[in-house]
Amino acid sequence: MTRVAIIGAGMTAFGQLWEKGLIDLAVEANNKALEDAGIGRKQIQALYCGNMSSGMFTKQEHVSSLIAGASGLSPIPSTRIEAACASGSAAIREGFLAIKSGLYDSVMVVGAEKMTDVSSTASTRILSAASSQEFEASIGATFPGLYALLARLHMHRFGTTEEQLAGVAVKNHMNALNNPYAHLRKKISVEDVLRSQKIADPIKLLDCAPVSDGAATVILASEKTAKSLTDTPVWIEASAQASDTISLHDRDDLTSLNASAVASREALRQARLENQDIDCLELHDCFTIAEILAIEDLGFVGKGKGGKFVEDGQTEIGGKIPVNPSGGLKAKGHPIGASGVAQAVESFWQLRGEAANNTNPARIMTHNVGGSGATAVVHIFGR
Amino acid sequence: MTRVAIIGAGMTAFGQLWEKGLIDLAVEANNKALEDAGIGRKQIQALYCGNMSSGMFTKQEHVSSLIAGASGLSPIPSTRIEAACASGSAAIREGFLAIKSGLYDSVMVVGAEKMTDVSSTASTRILSAASSQEFEASIGATFPGLYALLARLHMHRFGTTEEQLAGVAVKNHMNALNNPYAHLRKKISVEDVLRSQKIADPIKLLDCAPVSDGAATVILASEKTAKSLTDTPVWIEASAQASDTISLHDRDDLTSLNASAVASREALRQARLENQDIDCLELHDCFTIAEILAIEDLGFVGKGKGGKFVEDGQTEIGGKIPVNPSGGLKAKGHPIGASGVAQAVESFWQLRGEAANNTNPARIMTHNVGGSGATAVVHIFGR
Repeated sequence: MTRVAIIGAGMTAFGQLWEKGLIDLAVEANNKALEDAGIGRKQIQALYCGNMSSGMFTKQEHVSSLIAGASGLSPIPSTRIEAACASGSAAIREGFLAIKSGLYDSVMVVGAEKMTDVSSTASTRILSAASSQEFEASIGATFPGLYALLARLHMHRFGTTEEQLAGVAVKNHMNALNNPYAHLRKKISVEDVLRSQKIADPIKLLDCAPVSDGAATVILASEKTAKSLTDTPVWIEASAQASDTISLHDRDDLTSLNASAVASREALRQARLENQDIDCLELHDCFTIAEILAIEDLGFVGKGKGGKFVEDGQTEIGGKIPVNPSGGLKAKGHPIGASGVAQAVESFWQLRGEAANNTNPARIMTHNVGGSGATAVVHIFGR
Repeated sequence: MTRVAIIGAGMTAFGQLWEKGLIDLAVEANNKALEDAGIGRKQIQALYCGNMSSGMFTKQEHVSSLIAGASGLSPIPSTRIEAACASGSAAIREGFLAIKSGLYDSVMVVGAEKMTDVSSTASTRILSAASSQEFEASIGATFPGLYALLARLHMHRFGTTEEQLAGVAVKNHMNALNNPYAHLRKKISVEDVLRSQKIADPIKLLDCAPVSDGAATVILASEKTAKSLTDTPVWIEASAQASDTISLHDRDDLTSLNASAVASREALRQARLENQDIDCLELHDCFTIAEILAIEDLGFVGKGKGGKFVEDGQTEIGGKIPVNPSGGLKAKGHPIGASGVAQAVESFWQLRGEAANNTNPARIMTHNVGGSGATAVVHIFGR
C-alpha cells in the first residue's frame, strides 16, 4: 500500500465570524490549501467533509455536495463524515483510507462548523446531540456537566487540583497569543480561571473551549504524487480510531477515556513507534480536564499523574512534551467539525517549521475526541 | 488490491415502526447480518453508518458510536457517513475503500433512518435540508416540488406522459407485493395514481415514495476472508460516486442528473463492463420521474425514451431489464439512510437466488441519489 502524505494545508481564522457562512468558511480554507499545495482543482479526485451538525445549526444537511460545488470541485465524490467533535479527524481518516485503497492519488479533506448563528442556549442543546439524548441530555446533563463528573472523580481519586486544571488553560492561552488563527488571544492567569464563572463545578468558564466558527483543510496525496509536487511532504505514519459507549454510566471506569487509549495504542503499533518517539501533541482539550485525561490515556504520563505533570510545566513549549502549541481547542477555538483537521494543519506547519510556536518536532501525535469519549481518533504525522 | 465481497446481509421490515427507535432498528439489522454471515462480533473490525439526519429527526448526532455500543461492537472504529438520501450507498463505499486499503478484512455497514416520530410537516422540512436551504427550501421548494420541475420539463421536451410516470408506481407496487420487507404492499392501477391527491403538479401522492422507518446491513470482507466464510460471496465489482451542484438553477440541463451519468460511467469503467452486461437494476425511484431519469442517465435507454420504455413493460420482471424487483423506494419504502444499503441487500439476495422476486441475474447495478441529484452513488455487484 502506498504511504499517504499531507501536501498542502489552509485554514480560516477561528472565532465568531458572523459575516461568513459554513460554505464560505469551507471554500476559504479549501482555496488556501490548494494554493499551498500548488495543485490544480482538476487534480483533486475526492472530497471528504468533517462536520458535526450543520443540520441542527443551519438546517442544511448534504453539505458535502454544497462545498464541492462552491469550491469548483464537482463532479468528484464528496462525502460528509460525522463523529461528533471528532468529525474532522474521522474525515482525514477516510481520505487516508481512500488513497491507501489505490483508487485515488489526491484527496481534499475539509472540516468546518458554523456555530455562532444560534443562541448559546441553542448551541448547548445542539452540542448535547453528541451525548446520549436518552440517558444524558434528556435529564439535563450538558457537556460541561459530563466533563465536570470526570474532573470531580479525577480530583477525588488522584488529588488533581482546580489549580492544575487551570494551568492547562493558562498554558494554552499563552500558546495562542502568537497564533494569528486563534479565537482567544488573551493571556490569563490561574487566578483568572479560578475566579471565572462556575459552569458546572469544578468546571469554570475559563476551563471551557469557546464556541467558534471556522474551517480547516488538508490535501492528501499518495507517495508518488506527493513526491512529484513537494520536497517537504508530511507523512501520515498512523491513523487509528476507536469507539466506546456514548453514556458515561455504561463504562467501567471514568478516570480514563478508553477509546483514547485504544486508538493511541493502535496508532503507535501502526507506526512501529513508542511514546518517547513522539515530540509534540495536539490533543483534544475541550475542557481543561480533557487535556489531563488525554496525556494520561495516550501514555505520556502515568494514570493520575497528569495534573502534576502540567503543574511542573512539562507540557509547555520547552517542557518534556509540548502539548497544544497552537493553543488547542481551549484557546485556538473549537468549531467542532474543523478541530480535528486544524490539528493536522498545525502538525503540518510544525513539521515544516512554519508554525507560530515552532517546537521543531520530527513526529507529532494528534488526538481528537467525539463527545465524552464515545469516539477517539489518533494520528501520527512525521517528516 | 484485494477484491471486496458482501458475505452477509440483513434488514428490518420498512414501514411506520412506532415501537422502535433508530438504534433498535440498526441493531436488529446488524444482528440479522451477523447471523447470515456466520461471523462473530469480534471479527468485525470497523463499522460505517449511513444516516441522513438523526440530528434533525431525533436530536441525536454521533449515532455511529451509539450503534456500535448497542451492537456490542465497541471499541472498533465507527463512523457516520452522510450524503443525504445517498448516505447508505456512500457508507458502503467507505467500507469498500477501507477493505481495499488493506487495513481491514471485515467491515459492517448499516444504513438506518427513523422518520415517522415527527409530523409530516416536520419531515418535509427536514428532508428539505438535502436541498439548498438558501435558494430552494427557503422559498418553499419541497422535494416533490423540485422533482415536479424535472418531470414537467421531461414531459414538455420528450412527450413523457403522466400515465408513463404512473406506470413506474404500478410496477413497483406490483413487485413489492411479494416482498415481506416492503412498506407498501398494495396493488395499484394507473388510474389510482392519476386520481390520487396532487402534491406538486404533475406529481401526485402515488408518484411519491413513502416516509419510512427502517435499517439494512451488509457485511463486507476481503477476498481471503470472504472465501474462508462462504462459498457464495457477492462481489463488489465497482463502487463509484459523483457530485453536482445542490441547486437545480445552477445546472446546465434539467432533463438529466449529471451525477448519475458520471457515476454510472465510472462504475462500468471500473468493472470493465458495458450496459448490456447488467441484468437487473435497483435504482433511486424517490418519485416516479426519478426512475425514468435514472434508466436514461445510467445508459439503459436513450435520453427521452424512458417513459415509452416503462410503458412497453421493458422494466418489468421478464422485461429487457428488470428495475426495482424489490419494489424500489416507491413501494419497499424509503428510510433515507437505509435505502442505499437495502439496495445492496436486495442485490445480495438476487445474486444468491434468495430474493422474493428472483430475476436470476449475474450482475446488478444499484443507483442511489442524494437530494435532487447533488450526489449519486453507483455500485455493480456480481456473483
